[in-house]
Amino acid sequence: MRPAENAQLALLLEVSGTPKPGNVDRDRDLDDLRYEQFLSGAVGAGAGLRAAESGPVGETFERAVQGMVDPHGENTQFGALLLLTPLVRAANEENLSPAGVDSVVKDTTVTDAAAFYRAFEHCSVFVSDPPADAGELDVRRGAAAVPAVEERDLSLYEVMALGEDEDDVAREWTGGFERSFRVASRIGELPGSLSDRTAAVFCEQLAEHPDTLVAKKHGSETAEWASKEIAEHLGDIDMLISLANSFVRRGINPGTTADIVAAGLFIALERGVEV
Amino acid sequence: MRPAENAQLALLLEVSGTPKPGNVDRDRDLDDLRYEQFLSGAVGAGAGLRAAESGPVGETFERAVQGMVDPHGENTQFGALLLLTPLVRAANEENLSPAGVDSVVKDTTVTDAAAFYRAFEHCSVFVSDPPADAGELDVRRGAAAVPAVEERDLSLYEVMALGEDEDDVAREWTGGFERSFRVASRIGELPGSLSDRTAAVFCEQLAEHPDTLVAKKHGSETAEWASKEIAEHLGDIDMLISLANSFVRRGINPGTTADIVAAGLFIALERGVEV
Repeated sequence: MRPAENAQLALLLEVSGTPKPGNVDRDRDLDDLRYEQFLSGAVGAGAGLRAAESGPVGETFERAVQGMVDPHGENTQFGALLLLTPLVRAANEENLSPAGVDSVVKDTTVTDAAAFYRAFEHCSVFVSDPPADAGELDVRRGAAAVPAVEERDLSLYEVMALGEDEDDVAREWTGGFERSFRVASRIGELPGSLSDRTAAVFCEQLAEHPDTLVAKKHGSETAEWASKEIAEHLGDIDMLISLANSFVRRGINPGTTADIVAAGLFIALERGVEV
Repeated sequence: MRPAENAQLALLLEVSGTPKPGNVDRDRDLDDLRYEQFLSGAVGAGAGLRAAESGPVGETFERAVQGMVDPHGENTQFGALLLLTPLVRAANEENLSPAGVDSVVKDTTVTDAAAFYRAFEHCSVFVSDPPADAGELDVRRGAAAVPAVEERDLSLYEVMALGEDEDDVAREWTGGFERSFRVASRIGELPGSLSDRTAAVFCEQLAEHPDTLVAKKHGSETAEWASKEIAEHLGDIDMLISLANSFVRRGINPGTTADIVAAGLFIALERGVEV
């Protein structure tokens, strides 16, 4: 399979892993987000992912996001696509390593940054209050922030660096995709079906790293509590299912962890893990 | 979404509907066929389906089958792709009606027929003993049958006509895709999520029509028995789940019914049913 296809398959395998406490999976919908919409998002993102094999990161990411929201209009895989776009490019250049993807993201320009801001116009992305000094660069401004981005000549990599302290997708970008590659290695090691391994590595990651989306929505204490709960019950499927239902009821939705697992699945598929 | 994307989504929605007694669905694997392989098959078929929008039916079908089996090597959606390929073409020509797809399949040539025979070389397709007079045209011969097909100048439509009595995918081809369009209408009418409607319409179809793949594998009495069991318990989810487990144990796998449901899902998506 070519890199864009493995990326699409990674999105599908990610959402199919169960139980992944708090997230949509094949056994659990959220009130406003359903499993079928993730299938549709993965299909719709295909053209953007194919373009990402050799096209500019920002523009092809924006295209993947546009395809993802058509026709259901929901944000299902925004963060995962932000990780997959440069990984697909690195894989297509036969350079899928921390150094390889680091070079892809460091090569981004202000044009990539502008496309990233425009991508926020295509769907609703949960963003916490930005630092007081973000002002004109607040992603919630969408395309309106582009003149300020251009004036400061910020690359997409530099925009990500602004968010690395509060968003673990941004931190992957600035940190050589360290967690994504670790997830890929764990997927290679774990037993069971790829769906079972996806769920297991999701829980391991969540136990180790409080989810930054949960922290933005509910505060860092809740994010830390959720990680502690998972850590106490790692490997206990019945308890994890019970936590899954309880997290869903409370709206605790560790979306950033899912994004990183999707990125790790992509790397594992590129390395030849069997479906 | 463009027709090829709706076809890919139809494949994903089909396998996600549960319970679909005897088939792989999101809650049930078979011994030799797993849910994840269907996800992979849908992704891999993408390039062939995109080519099918305007390319020759036979060649693009063969390409879709080749992509479907890469990298897992299993036949997951051969029959569904045989229905989807001409439907995608008709949809792309804005002529997705029984008459529109009838015209697409009647326009096929001996070149399409040759590609169809070659497609059997890419994966294992269950085929019963052909009629005694099939001889040189036996699909099990794969590419070896192509000279005989060419000598008789048979179109793919004419090859399908040879199988219409024993294979309901072939009968769709020669009968204006009548059941596929009926499935699409039912999907538009039924309540619930698209996955729930997929499972419901699968059971309705199976209750009405003994599955021809089951008949080929286990004889027509078993196929009729399976349909009668489903008919008696339509709408009773607990009994259908119990039948699902019992069919899986006995190897009763109504794959033709699933193929026709995938075709109906595609038509429903093209008509604008919401995901």
